[in-house]
Amino acid sequence: MSVLIKNVSIVTMTEPELVYGYVLIKDGMFHTVNSGEPTDELISEVGRIVNGQGKWLLPGLINTHGHKGMALLRGHSDDLPLHRWLEEKMWPFEAKQDRQAVRAGRDMAMAEMILSGTTTFLEMYHLFMDDFAERIEEVGMRASLMRSMIGLCPKSEQEAKLDEAKLFAKQWHKKASGRIQTMLAPHAPYTCPPDFIERIVEEARHMSIPVHMHLAETQFEVNKHQEQYGIHPFDHLEEMGLLSNVHWLFAHGVYLEDTHLDRMKEYDLAVSYNPVSNLKLGSGVARVDEMLRKGLTVGIGTDSVASNNTLDLFEELRMGALIQKGQSHDPTTLQARDALKMGTVNGAKALQFENLGKIEKGYEADFVLVAPNEVHLQPKEHIISHLVYATKGTDVTDVYVKGKPLLENRELLTLDKERIVFEANEEYQRILQK
Amino acid sequence: MSVLIKNVSIVTMTEPELVYGYVLIKDGMFHTVNSGEPTDELISEVGRIVNGQGKWLLPGLINTHGHKGMALLRGHSDDLPLHRWLEEKMWPFEAKQDRQAVRAGRDMAMAEMILSGTTTFLEMYHLFMDDFAERIEEVGMRASLMRSMIGLCPKSEQEAKLDEAKLFAKQWHKKASGRIQTMLAPHAPYTCPPDFIERIVEEARHMSIPVHMHLAETQFEVNKHQEQYGIHPFDHLEEMGLLSNVHWLFAHGVYLEDTHLDRMKEYDLAVSYNPVSNLKLGSGVARVDEMLRKGLTVGIGTDSVASNNTLDLFEELRMGALIQKGQSHDPTTLQARDALKMGTVNGAKALQFENLGKIEKGYEADFVLVAPNEVHLQPKEHIISHLVYATKGTDVTDVYVKGKPLLENRELLTLDKERIVFEANEEYQRILQK
Repeated sequence: MSVLIKNVSIVTMTEPELVYGYVLIKDGMFHTVNSGEPTDELISEVGRIVNGQGKWLLPGLINTHGHKGMALLRGHSDDLPLHRWLEEKMWPFEAKQDRQAVRAGRDMAMAEMILSGTTTFLEMYHLFMDDFAERIEEVGMRASLMRSMIGLCPKSEQEAKLDEAKLFAKQWHKKASGRIQTMLAPHAPYTCPPDFIERIVEEARHMSIPVHMHLAETQFEVNKHQEQYGIHPFDHLEEMGLLSNVHWLFAHGVYLEDTHLDRMKEYDLAVSYNPVSNLKLGSGVARVDEMLRKGLTVGIGTDSVASNNTLDLFEELRMGALIQKGQSHDPTTLQARDALKMGTVNGAKALQFENLGKIEKGYEADFVLVAPNEVHLQPKEHIISHLVYATKGTDVTDVYVKGKPLLENRELLTLDKERIVFEANEEYQRILQK
Repeated sequence: MSVLIKNVSIVTMTEPELVYGYVLIKDGMFHTVNSGEPTDELISEVGRIVNGQGKWLLPGLINTHGHKGMALLRGHSDDLPLHRWLEEKMWPFEAKQDRQAVRAGRDMAMAEMILSGTTTFLEMYHLFMDDFAERIEEVGMRASLMRSMIGLCPKSEQEAKLDEAKLFAKQWHKKASGRIQTMLAPHAPYTCPPDFIERIVEEARHMSIPVHMHLAETQFEVNKHQEQYGIHPFDHLEEMGLLSNVHWLFAHGVYLEDTHLDRMKEYDLAVSYNPVSNLKLGSGVARVDEMLRKGLTVGIGTDSVASNNTLDLFEELRMGALIQKGQSHDPTTLQARDALKMGTVNGAKALQFENLGKIEKGYEADFVLVAPNEVHLQPKEHIISHLVYATKGTDVTDVYVKGKPLLENRELLTLDKERIVFEANEEYQRILQK
């Protein structure tokens, strides 16, 4: 069915930056993006007309790193050193989680993302990935999914995990009308021996899918790798010849030198910047200003709500831009439009989704409407500025993926909010008392 | 009239930290704070009963630094170097502002603050302060007001400004049933010659009111002061004997050494931490972790929306806590409850309001209700964590100042939201085209 959204300020993420007019969607793609009013002829042809009433239409936001399977852990523990936080709080709870609990958390996460304008996300987790893929197919979001692998185990166990990860990746790659893609994901250099990472990369090359991994999140982990192998983990991957002939998306990349960034650019690698999680866990601040200057592809991610504690990408964009300015002592760093690119078109590139992240003919019709009606968005004419520095997730009124509405006037169409709120609390308590 | 709020989780900011029960308000003060259910006898006596339905009741947030008179400048300019931002964007617009424009901006600012749970704020500005005081009296907020003075002018002009500031401070101190207090406010050491600051401090001592001033916001300004006077601006104030026998509240304090912090503690001075503004303008990060360790009184402020771009103190608390963790590489720094203290009881102390910032018998009944109903606050039991790391200003449903409601179920009772939105845009355009 064709859909026409008229009377909107379109933030295109291409040239021109802003168009006041309408978009026509056919078969889940943008067919026309035009200024002014649609013709009567066009109006008579379309299946559905939405009057945008002066709202802002922009590409749906793209969250390039996270673990939605941990969503019930929001607020479960804060303000602890990383190892105590993991060992005393996160892992004991995660070990008790079953399918029902993980599903409740993920439904909550999807609802939160849709309600704050995210249409596409990455999920790196080890539990019940098939279950999640089925739910995503029903709910209508777009996602890059992977069965995360920790390699601190016997070879046979490593191979079993890799088999599971490959099977999942094969079964779901480009499924759900192309809304689901997959990757292979060694957890991190500090949890996967080099030869296991090598095995995984070989398989990813063979399957022509990308690899996602945590890299250089903390100084501690980089130092430990240097002690153990005498080399920085990035240099180690390069020395092993693992960086070419495959698309890499690294999460974090806080502890990287200039020379690493130069070589990342040569390999055309992508990085997920996760500013809030990196701050909250005391890890530090990734050198995103330099990454962007060197032309690297940088997406933005929330990581899990256990270390954030929200999935609202508008928060992440604002914080991500502000912290770069503060860190570099330069207010011209990471300007509003660059932050928006990170959250849209560059996120799509990082995840290797084609024709995603712009409002342009031939692109996927994944977009959100933001109503500039609240006091905190006045005066309302500074659209690009407000989207990064003033908009709240709650200003999002409508969300579409592949031309299909998932949120209308803040009503979730494919998820049951009351049930989600109820079950998130029920399941959290049940697992806690297990 | 007495008001009873029952069935709420009370975040007291004293011991015990959380009480599930009710509060009774008489004559604008908390009369009873109790766990459990109110007795039938009590219920039969009170004028008004509000069923809190499991909401969280906490002290109204306190914003210790800002310039609401600049509110129309939200999004007017971002991502520019400070001097170009000021000289090309802020000052030309401000020079054209008249009473009507400033009022429209301030009405918008008050609406935004109430809608996001702020009950008390500081206003440092040079224009139409009487007008604002009258509006605040009508609207029902609590505020510390001051006519800001820049001293880069002939002595006669300095004295005229000081006369105006003193007159305003006298007329409004402890007015509006005590909701309004005043200070004297030299703008900054880089805009006020030392002898002018001395004159102002003498007057503040004479009038027994505090002094508020920007201090050490940027490295540039501190370096310039060193060049001109051969001394750090804080040391300069101390050398002149201006730090004792008066309450100082400094804004920013980004460039202070340990020795300064030690002496600030000796003088029992207060600091307003303005994390977002300091990041956005590329100024840096105040050493709040060390300030708190040394026992300094630290409040939190948004500065103006021109450099923020929101007045939502929940955003400021979250960002303020996160950036300290990231800066210090220590996740245990500035924990959630310390951030909340900064936004409530310590803010009250910084502004020298008595009996403000706690939910306790004998304290001013300034409080907000937060509804933990939205998806992003689930599981809902982690109240202190969620208030800092997950709550949005939009989760605030009700706001009371001195026992009187200003917001009920997100409806503003003393301001007209539609008119404010309309006028903010009208006035912005009018001044722009002037």
